[in-house]
Amino acid sequence: MVGKKILIDAFGSDNPDSFIQGIARVLRETEGVNLVVTGNKEYIENQLIGEDFDKNRLEIIHAEQIITNDDYPVEAIRKKRNSSLCVGLEALKKRDDIGCMISAGNTGAVIAGAVLLLGRASSQDRPTLLTILPNDKGGFTCLADCGANVDCKPHHLLKFGEYATEYCQKVLAIENPKVGLLSVGTEDKKGNALTKEAFALLKQSNLNFAGNMESNTALSGDVDIIVADGFWGNVLLKSIEGTAKSVATRMFNLLKKHAEKESDMLFVKRAIKELMSLLDFTSQGGAILLGAKKPIVKAHGSANEETVINTVKQAIKICNM
Amino acid sequence: MVGKKILIDAFGSDNPDSFIQGIARVLRETEGVNLVVTGNKEYIENQLIGEDFDKNRLEIIHAEQIITNDDYPVEAIRKKRNSSLCVGLEALKKRDDIGCMISAGNTGAVIAGAVLLLGRASSQDRPTLLTILPNDKGGFTCLADCGANVDCKPHHLLKFGEYATEYCQKVLAIENPKVGLLSVGTEDKKGNALTKEAFALLKQSNLNFAGNMESNTALSGDVDIIVADGFWGNVLLKSIEGTAKSVATRMFNLLKKHAEKESDMLFVKRAIKELMSLLDFTSQGGAILLGAKKPIVKAHGSANEETVINTVKQAIKICNM
Repeated sequence: MVGKKILIDAFGSDNPDSFIQGIARVLRETEGVNLVVTGNKEYIENQLIGEDFDKNRLEIIHAEQIITNDDYPVEAIRKKRNSSLCVGLEALKKRDDIGCMISAGNTGAVIAGAVLLLGRASSQDRPTLLTILPNDKGGFTCLADCGANVDCKPHHLLKFGEYATEYCQKVLAIENPKVGLLSVGTEDKKGNALTKEAFALLKQSNLNFAGNMESNTALSGDVDIIVADGFWGNVLLKSIEGTAKSVATRMFNLLKKHAEKESDMLFVKRAIKELMSLLDFTSQGGAILLGAKKPIVKAHGSANEETVINTVKQAIKICNM
Repeated sequence: MVGKKILIDAFGSDNPDSFIQGIARVLRETEGVNLVVTGNKEYIENQLIGEDFDKNRLEIIHAEQIITNDDYPVEAIRKKRNSSLCVGLEALKKRDDIGCMISAGNTGAVIAGAVLLLGRASSQDRPTLLTILPNDKGGFTCLADCGANVDCKPHHLLKFGEYATEYCQKVLAIENPKVGLLSVGTEDKKGNALTKEAFALLKQSNLNFAGNMESNTALSGDVDIIVADGFWGNVLLKSIEGTAKSVATRMFNLLKKHAEKESDMLFVKRAIKELMSLLDFTSQGGAILLGAKKPIVKAHGSANEETVINTVKQAIKICNM
């Protein structure tokens, strides 16, 4: 059975050529998925010359402009209406045959575009950007919000928990996901003005609320979902990334220092390689923007051929949410 | 020259016996420092039997009660007036010959006690808890606030920057410390309502303000001081601790898996040991509470003999601030 089509913004990534190769590979390797791609049609077609795939499963919508990371998000959405991102969002909004969109572009522009062009799912709520963290138990922990929304109200945090719960259930197949509220202590009364009110809302809700949690257990896998205002969710996400890189680098340098002979480093390099893949936040696809009229997968700016494969697999599941 | 005395709360740590041994060791190893210690006098004296040190340099003030980590901070300060912490704070307040206090006790109680018993340095300001992070350049980066104050106003964040600048100059000998404001992007306009106002105040100030910074560079050493509301400062601090532990553990397990023979692990263990000491936040002493009438060093709850040595060295410098 062929489900909804998946729309791909071909010109968001820093590596558009590799990204476009990924489109051909998806069509070769993944059955039952049809793609709609936005971007410079001639450029895309030239990149795909000689690639073997079913042309009937690919539709290209021409879009002349590109939104870059240097563009101011709201301004870019207003002024670059012919960009691959804006043309994609318009098609996502209008066409019932498209279920979900993938973009590796300017995060702020993707979020602004989702609100301005696609529209919110409900007028009181804000779309949330949900990230998937690979946890110590070998599973995944969702962080919502990881940066789309700052200065949230308590009811926004409740909604983030609801969106993330639905994502866990339908995409990650976690039946009854545990929700933790990011705070500065595990006791019920710990927190700031926002978390104290959000705590009360989460406790009254139908979610599987596990109470307050601290950031030192973010990777432990004790909870399936971490609910946070986008400001501190972003602080948490980026500090995990920065610390992981810092510790792995320090460790590698120390191992090199203490190794007795060059061959000692052979198994160290194998171990480091496996560590990097364990810590790779993109192995499960991208971050997911939920709460606009349709879901959008936000792939990392460094997205390449491999990312397209992973995000399309994720997008197929999301279309069935 | 003998400077101001240093007061030590002997019953805050989880390991009071080792902690008390540290007191004797300080008096043996560090010249020119006199200590005032609060806690159960008989217990302390029994622990010190047979230890060789100059008894004239130690004064013990008896305090019957102990505030534990299970006590509610404000309630504990109000009700346990005969605790080693409260008796210490009262002496710190009243006696001109004491310059600084060290406690490894309940962090909330230390902060509450500083405000309620010792008093604030200025009525508009809040005391800030400053932590020293060992950075990638082999130096140190100060994080203020790391958890004492949530729901801060912009002028509090400015004050945290001022306190931390003074600390860097006088204790860490950094002449013109660079101050970064923790935010969700490096551009001037990125942030939430609080950081946007704090940004303007910091920019107008006499501090060496380097603008907004993101948490993924917290350990890079790019700035000497990270200014943050205590809520997200705490999220940052604990996520660095949690991620460092998680990555080091995963790395160790992978090295064990990939090692070809048992002897391969010998140099790995040496490297891990050095990594742990590089990442040890307590090697430079404790966190520092600044902005009460006198400074307080907050040692980690797991403080032991070694911690006492490190925190007293730190406290001697702080007394000269």
